[in-house]
Amino acid sequence: MIFETIANTGHEEVVFCHNKDAGLKAIIAIHNTVLGPSLGGLRMWPYKSEQEAINDVLRLSRGMTYKNAVAGLNLGGGKAVIIGDPAKDKSEALFRAFGRFVNSLNGRYITAEDVGIDVNDMEWVFRETSFVTGVHQVHGGSGDPSPFTAFGTLQGLMASLNACFGNEDVGKYSYAVQGAGHVGMEFIKLLREHDAKVYVTDINKQLVQRAVDDYGCTAVGLDEIYDTDAEVYSPCALGGTITMETLGRLKCKVICGAANNQLASNEIGDEVSRRGLFYAPDYAVNAGGVMNISLEIDGYNRERAMRMMRTIYHNVSRIFEIAKRDGIPTYLAADRLAEERISTIGKLRLPHLSAVAPSFQGRRGN
Amino acid sequence: MIFETIANTGHEEVVFCHNKDAGLKAIIAIHNTVLGPSLGGLRMWPYKSEQEAINDVLRLSRGMTYKNAVAGLNLGGGKAVIIGDPAKDKSEALFRAFGRFVNSLNGRYITAEDVGIDVNDMEWVFRETSFVTGVHQVHGGSGDPSPFTAFGTLQGLMASLNACFGNEDVGKYSYAVQGAGHVGMEFIKLLREHDAKVYVTDINKQLVQRAVDDYGCTAVGLDEIYDTDAEVYSPCALGGTITMETLGRLKCKVICGAANNQLASNEIGDEVSRRGLFYAPDYAVNAGGVMNISLEIDGYNRERAMRMMRTIYHNVSRIFEIAKRDGIPTYLAADRLAEERISTIGKLRLPHLSAVAPSFQGRRGN
Repeated sequence: MIFETIANTGHEEVVFCHNKDAGLKAIIAIHNTVLGPSLGGLRMWPYKSEQEAINDVLRLSRGMTYKNAVAGLNLGGGKAVIIGDPAKDKSEALFRAFGRFVNSLNGRYITAEDVGIDVNDMEWVFRETSFVTGVHQVHGGSGDPSPFTAFGTLQGLMASLNACFGNEDVGKYSYAVQGAGHVGMEFIKLLREHDAKVYVTDINKQLVQRAVDDYGCTAVGLDEIYDTDAEVYSPCALGGTITMETLGRLKCKVICGAANNQLASNEIGDEVSRRGLFYAPDYAVNAGGVMNISLEIDGYNRERAMRMMRTIYHNVSRIFEIAKRDGIPTYLAADRLAEERISTIGKLRLPHLSAVAPSFQGRRGN
Repeated sequence: MIFETIANTGHEEVVFCHNKDAGLKAIIAIHNTVLGPSLGGLRMWPYKSEQEAINDVLRLSRGMTYKNAVAGLNLGGGKAVIIGDPAKDKSEALFRAFGRFVNSLNGRYITAEDVGIDVNDMEWVFRETSFVTGVHQVHGGSGDPSPFTAFGTLQGLMASLNACFGNEDVGKYSYAVQGAGHVGMEFIKLLREHDAKVYVTDINKQLVQRAVDDYGCTAVGLDEIYDTDAEVYSPCALGGTITMETLGRLKCKVICGAANNQLASNEIGDEVSRRGLFYAPDYAVNAGGVMNISLEIDGYNRERAMRMMRTIYHNVSRIFEIAKRDGIPTYLAADRLAEERISTIGKLRLPHLSAVAPSFQGRRGN
């Protein structure tokens, strides 16, 4: 039952959206709007059941509250899912019908791209509502977030090095980077600009070769990455790679990368802490993407985006401080930082979104 | 599961609203907005389960689509329920939190009083949103709807008499009126102004006495009303009074009253038709209340309201025509009238609410 679940997880609102003509079945979950309008991606997925879709959107929207709060944004957490197969069920009508529902929420939820959705889908949504980010750059969109996410990851890394070694000299240490995709390759490039020793792996061998040829990295095998003798392990692709098994093999002192959901479970997070490793919580480190699209709301500005990425250094440092202060693992410290910010700012009673809708200045097209 | 249900019933949107601090658990169901913003009451009830609340709000919101469509209003159907005990759980915070949710829907749903809610509760809702009807008259509210509902019932009666007897001479016939509350007493007064013979019953003996003393009615017992020798049976209180048992006793030719849900089941409606009785569908007859509050949207005007009640004559006549044309019971003909109007007007592609929010001119206070 919905209320039982959302009373436990603290959600504010769950909207079931149905349009027969467009074949739309979507759920918009608004977890928390204390800090501002809820921002979070739209996912399209062929869920096997409605319950699966509900569970996913509730879990993901709650995650966005924490991510946006730790990122220091004036944004709450939300998420949307469309039940359907991205390969077969996409249409203009589908995304425009979805856009109308987003619009009818009057800014309480701002949507963005997530799994199964691309910028062209977002353009259809944009025809019906301004409450959308990640549209084409000619329409005021922020474009490819990868360089920002990578630069943000570098800031998180420097904070982690400082917490662990007392200095943030990136070039002094060695790195086992898992994944050389859009974000991973940008991150590798930044590490190599600091003359760091970089080991790299990827399921795509061409990407590994490019990292070797263009940036002078050392290639290692897919599984070998866990045994690599590097001070920093940097997961930049798949989630869930930190397990009891891999943890037994890792030789690093610091874990800091751009991948989502790096810990296979909370128990692993506890164990990482017990072993004295410095784990920079993933959602604090990889906030560059959401920071970047958040700037579309007041009119996108690339220079401001790069400056904003620097705050990730501060956020990750605060998390290490809270972990030390309260004697808790960093993944819990990140949650605590989010909760403290929501609680403190909530007490200021800033204008609520229902009174002040986001402006989306400098936007055009719809 | 929600989507399975709403795909069958044709709902557009179901919103689960939760506010921990206010203790609010509410569901807003928007069934159909083809004709305009959805309008329907807010009910507060100590539902035993969430499923019971969902079933109720889905059923009631669908009913409002049909009622508003047959009434000829530019309004779709919606409804809201708050899970709670009206005797214990009311508070300013509760209704203001609810009002914020209504407001965040940006006019897709307009709320009103229903079971468990009074005008003072509506005033709290009004502090947070303009999308509310039934506020105090000093704030642009329409006031007590009883005289309008009674006058509208008289129009439905005249159409029914005309369909049955070929004339609409109210004074020529006799009436068994069940219920002498706000609406019933007003209706009795109108009947007696036409010098009609009126039999009356009510669980409240003082009201019956007043009908006898002030208007010259004849009192009958609570159960005796079904055996009364009158041409018109007029249920104006409880719902579900037309059952197989009472139908066997009724001596009337016409059934026309202001009560909700008069038929105990659809099967009873079929039987009423088979017996050649002229049943004026309840939701077409008692639309005076919703017509009256609908006028608050563009600025309430009492004279316009009384003129609007006259359209009930036309609506009920159309229903008798469709029943004859298609050879179906009148309760089905009413649904068909609603569906035909939604389908026809829908094809005109009038501006959708999400583009044009209702104005609520002449309102003040929030």
